[in-house]
Amino acid sequence: MSERTQTAKSAEQRLDEAGRWWSTSIIDIEPGRISVRGYPIQELIGALTFPQMIWLMVRGDLPSPEHARLLEATLVAAVDHGPHAPSIAISRMAITCGLPLNGAMASAINALDDIHGGAGQGCMELFRTISTSVGDRDATPDEIEAGVDAYIAAHGKIIPGFGHRWHGVDPRAQRLMKLVDAARSAGTISGRFARMGIAVESLLQRRKGSPIPMNIDGATAVIYSELGFEPALGRGLFILSRSVGILAHAWEQSQQGGRIKGPMAPSIPYRYTGPAPRTLVEPPSSET
Amino acid sequence: MSERTQTAKSAEQRLDEAGRWWSTSIIDIEPGRISVRGYPIQELIGALTFPQMIWLMVRGDLPSPEHARLLEATLVAAVDHGPHAPSIAISRMAITCGLPLNGAMASAINALDDIHGGAGQGCMELFRTISTSVGDRDATPDEIEAGVDAYIAAHGKIIPGFGHRWHGVDPRAQRLMKLVDAARSAGTISGRFARMGIAVESLLQRRKGSPIPMNIDGATAVIYSELGFEPALGRGLFILSRSVGILAHAWEQSQQGGRIKGPMAPSIPYRYTGPAPRTLVEPPSSET
Amino acid sequence: MSERTQTAKSAEQRLDEAGRWWSTSIIDIEPGRISVRGYPIQELIGALTFPQMIWLMVRGDLPSPEHARLLEATLVAAVDHGPHAPSIAISRMAITCGLPLNGAMASAINALDDIHGGAGQGCMELFRTISTSVGDRDATPDEIEAGVDAYIAAHGKIIPGFGHRWHGVDPRAQRLMKLVDAARSAGTISGRFARMGIAVESLLQRRKGSPIPMNIDGATAVIYSELGFEPALGRGLFILSRSVGILAHAWEQSQQGGRIKGPMAPSIPYRYTGPAPRTLVEPPSSET
Amino acid sequence: MSERTQTAKSAEQRLDEAGRWWSTSIIDIEPGRISVRGYPIQELIGALTFPQMIWLMVRGDLPSPEHARLLEATLVAAVDHGPHAPSIAISRMAITCGLPLNGAMASAINALDDIHGGAGQGCMELFRTISTSVGDRDATPDEIEAGVDAYIAAHGKIIPGFGHRWHGVDPRAQRLMKLVDAARSAGTISGRFARMGIAVESLLQRRKGSPIPMNIDGATAVIYSELGFEPALGRGLFILSRSVGILAHAWEQSQQGGRIKGPMAPSIPYRYTGPAPRTLVEPPSSET
Repeated sequence: MSERTQTAKSAEQRLDEAGRWWSTSIIDIEPGRISVRGYPIQELIGALTFPQMIWLMVRGDLPSPEHARLLEATLVAAVDHGPHAPSIAISRMAITCGLPLNGAMASAINALDDIHGGAGQGCMELFRTISTSVGDRDATPDEIEAGVDAYIAAHGKIIPGFGHRWHGVDPRAQRLMKLVDAARSAGTISGRFARMGIAVESLLQRRKGSPIPMNIDGATAVIYSELGFEPALGRGLFILSRSVGILAHAWEQSQQGGRIKGPMAPSIPYRYTGPAPRTLVEPPSSET
Repeated sequence: MSERTQTAKSAEQRLDEAGRWWSTSIIDIEPGRISVRGYPIQELIGALTFPQMIWLMVRGDLPSPEHARLLEATLVAAVDHGPHAPSIAISRMAITCGLPLNGAMASAINALDDIHGGAGQGCMELFRTISTSVGDRDATPDEIEAGVDAYIAAHGKIIPGFGHRWHGVDPRAQRLMKLVDAARSAGTISGRFARMGIAVESLLQRRKGSPIPMNIDGATAVIYSELGFEPALGRGLFILSRSVGILAHAWEQSQQGGRIKGPMAPSIPYRYTGPAPRTLVEPPSSET
Repeated sequence: MSERTQTAKSAEQRLDEAGRWWSTSIIDIEPGRISVRGYPIQELIGALTFPQMIWLMVRGDLPSPEHARLLEATLVAAVDHGPHAPSIAISRMAITCGLPLNGAMASAINALDDIHGGAGQGCMELFRTISTSVGDRDATPDEIEAGVDAYIAAHGKIIPGFGHRWHGVDPRAQRLMKLVDAARSAGTISGRFARMGIAVESLLQRRKGSPIPMNIDGATAVIYSELGFEPALGRGLFILSRSVGILAHAWEQSQQGGRIKGPMAPSIPYRYTGPAPRTLVEPPSSET
Repeated sequence: MSERTQTAKSAEQRLDEAGRWWSTSIIDIEPGRISVRGYPIQELIGALTFPQMIWLMVRGDLPSPEHARLLEATLVAAVDHGPHAPSIAISRMAITCGLPLNGAMASAINALDDIHGGAGQGCMELFRTISTSVGDRDATPDEIEAGVDAYIAAHGKIIPGFGHRWHGVDPRAQRLMKLVDAARSAGTISGRFARMGIAVESLLQRRKGSPIPMNIDGATAVIYSELGFEPALGRGLFILSRSVGILAHAWEQSQQGGRIKGPMAPSIPYRYTGPAPRTLVEPPSSET
């Protein structure tokens, strides 16, 4: 908007409005001073682990060491699932188009949407739905079933966090659930979301007649729910983790070289299913 | 390309070409088995810190605990510099447009390019240039000067890693350089890039007549060079770090709410500098 | 997945699966021959207008000249709304971070999501809901009201396409609706979505007690609905249009120069609302 | 930066700085009034073609009808080259991850970088180099050769705009060059860049001993150079054109359905080239 339309407010009023336009409780900066959630940054550097810093940034306070270790294990688990994953393929193709690492990572991270990067969040939302209806006690099998059915009614028949197109049993989920078990035994988490996840798994197996084991997204949802993260942050934390794989593959591709690498080798055709050859015989006229 | 043009090669030949189209030494996956750089993923989960996993993914082998701690401190240091940074502002604005966390992070991370996210890489390239010319010994002041002049000739007069538009002294750089000092004393790094960084800082101060202190990008470049990272990975690791701030601000913005939040409060005008009002008086004719 | 797991299928079977992996009815390519929707590309170049080509690409057939002109006018109308729009600001800030035009455009276009770029689509979905319930005849005021109420129940109280935070009357909407009127008079469109849009506008005014005039997104929704586009393509076509402004501003910013330009002048503060200064007095312990 | 550091400047001074932070000569907006390059928007809607509006936005003035038609033909020519192109594949894969059209287009457009989307720009830069050295007259064969050699010295041996990995002869280039010929005959362009392009093509053929015909990027570079566009805008205009294909393929993919579609059918393996299976036998120790 051009300046001449702004005469009605005083400079002070307009500046006050500007000052309220951006506000944050994350970081405060003055010349020579940076504080994060109230802590001087220089106290945090070298003192916090990276997962503790992640927790402080998104939650506002520091986790216990036990909680930080569970977060750390989960971040380690999800870094990569190879070039058949669209995000990894996008990252590598982007490098062959000339993008630097930031650009390749951006195009790839963008694709970590509802289906590719949001399964953990989806599973956390299912757990949230169930837990909201039962309060602090464990859900009964009927309540689990009602929650799953409500999820299916809202989102379709695929329950995120269970089953995997590659893995009969997901080795990452197994390992994470062992860490969950140990933390529950040690009393650092309650274990109610672990029990909930296992109950959902049992229900799905009963319905299908064969196992649909919890996958990494399900185990991640268990842990992040136990740790008290909001479901949307399940996606956010997954992105921080998978970004490592996206970076590593982008970097490896840049070392391999190659120009304009498409999805498939040139010898692999795509299938054309459109109209047979035709010609612009006459100017098209209005169809209405 | 349609299938009918592909008859010359046998199915085996074409499949072989396909198999060579994507190759990686990062990850190997079979049903029920995932190995990262040769390690079964379940051995790494709960055993490696997140920075160790980052190192393994991008370098191929595990760091020493001391090296991993230096990497960790550097990752902690750079997570955020507030909403005046374009990447953070982009992330927050994107949320107000309706994007989920992955989309906001993608638009923001994309902007971590040469100028906003590449200063550490630039400084590492300067160090690389100097160190390549002198081998393993320390550079003389004249060799430092020659390296800086070569950098200026190639990239312009701004030496990345020194000086800061907000901070006279960058508290993050000071703290990181103390950790570098301790690591050098303990013999876990050589310290030659630390000495190089300080020598560049001295040169810049002599030339300008006032201090241009090493900033976080300079200290980061020192550490990543000491740790043996390629310069391009300096940018990549910075992105992993700043992604935390980008996520935290996106999340905070989503909790604040608000729709279509532009860069400035509506009461803050922009300046229109274009043509005075005019009208389409006549169809324009060819100007050639 | 490594090769050794793939022995069960023959090369022919696997290649056949590959061939079905990507299929398209848009374009067919052989060496020296490109056909788009069945037309040889060389027949289209110089013969079709750009809007006709856009239509052919997304719809599969050519529009009448009258329909193409309505599409063209709508594409012209939405190219820009200045630097207060987040997408434009993102594009300009990205340039100051070092991104080339493609990168700046990508970060900006990404932000054309539900709220910033999806209003036309939202309005088309409202029209679709109403028209589905009444078939080919015009909706009664009660049916309009029922449709609006259903939309509000599903999406919240803001009806996209009506009202504008800057403009009491949107000059683009007025002009587009005149073109709609002329097309209806000429019989090239039916006019039922124009009448529907005006009926929604009347309803909103009655409810609020003051005008909430149709804006550019509403007028665009009228036109694209008259032309038979799917609602999701309303967003897609808007992106093609606004990309022009995003490009123009990115280019202008690159000519202006400047490095790391945040959202606001450095003299404009943001508001810090977080914890008061604190210190890491002791290692945090488990909170459970 | 928190407010308390900002006391030194008056509100008026700070507001003045804010007003100068964003400036544009593209668009001026006041309530109820939008003018583009000085023209009221309502005069342009329905009066300008979309390519004329594109030209006005990026150049500041209106093109002649003849120039607008050349731009239009070039925009039509480059809309798509099928799913083997990384940008198209990225767009389609992003849809299967759950992204809406804006997100899919963003990830894809991002990849139109130096190599995939910048060939036209690269060729324009070559033409610019040659034409700068010879002024308004045609370059001699020796001057052409010197320009090409300078380009190779700066950018490597691939001359953008000539040769095509799929097409012996690019039907789009042939058709565009016929339009160039007609425009030169009609006197609406000078033809010097057409002659320059043909001279480069001849040189490349002489050097290689076989034809390296001008491709669509070369023909586009000829036209945009004749029309007086800056080289960087060659990339920008290409993006506007290819965005159409990116949109059409994203839309088609969304109609086809499918979840998490990677680059290759699951039956097509990738090649693992990393370390043989190993185990975390002992904690790694410092390597320095």
